[in-house]
Amino acid sequence: MQKPRTCLVTQAMDILGKKWAITILLQLLSGPKRFCHLEGDTEVSGRLLSERLKELEAAGMVTRTIYPEVPPRVEYQLTEKGKDVGPIISDIYAWASKWMNDGLKQ
Amino acid sequence: MQKPRTCLVTQAMDILGKKWAITILLQLLSGPKRFCHLEGDTEVSGRLLSERLKELEAAGMVTRTIYPEVPPRVEYQLTEKGKDVGPIISDIYAWASKWMNDGLKQ
Repeated sequence: MQKPRTCLVTQAMDILGKKWAITILLQLLSGPKRFCHLEGDTEVSGRLLSERLKELEAAGMVTRTIYPEVPPRVEYQLTEKGKDVGPIISDIYAWASKWMNDGLKQ
Repeated sequence: MQKPRTCLVTQAMDILGKKWAITILLQLLSGPKRFCHLEGDTEVSGRLLSERLKELEAAGMVTRTIYPEVPPRVEYQLTEKGKDVGPIISDIYAWASKWMNDGLKQ
């Protein structure tokens, strides 16, 4: 039988480990963003960005709000579950700064 | 030009985000392990486990020690860079416990 501890971490990585998921969550930590801004702020292609946002929405980490303007404005923002990834991202940044900065400390 | 902050986090996820990488690192946090024990403790196939261990070794996060016994014993263990992923894994576990436990809090 699987040790529950690994199973939870592995389950979490099924979402967080997807290419660009953490990068998108990092962008949204600074507040709601429109699709075009997310696309501009990351290296993610429009198709993949749309796919990841749908997955993050399905995982309850992002909400999508459509404002009835002309043309309609669509904004993405983090839920509490999404915001709670903040400490993980800060730790990843701290680790990467220590060990990956400009390839000095490979 | 990329914003350096995202770039570092994205770079780190190129290693940490790979399927099973975090799960393998979690297993090694409790000390050196032989291949067969890693294989037994995770759901990873032998081929993929071998591939991930090579990548983690190339990234300077794992070392591989061959003991000249008959048959030879091979052990994997974390480097300081690998051990430093500990806080990230603890945060992932805390997040997953809060938001993914038995699907109660989806």
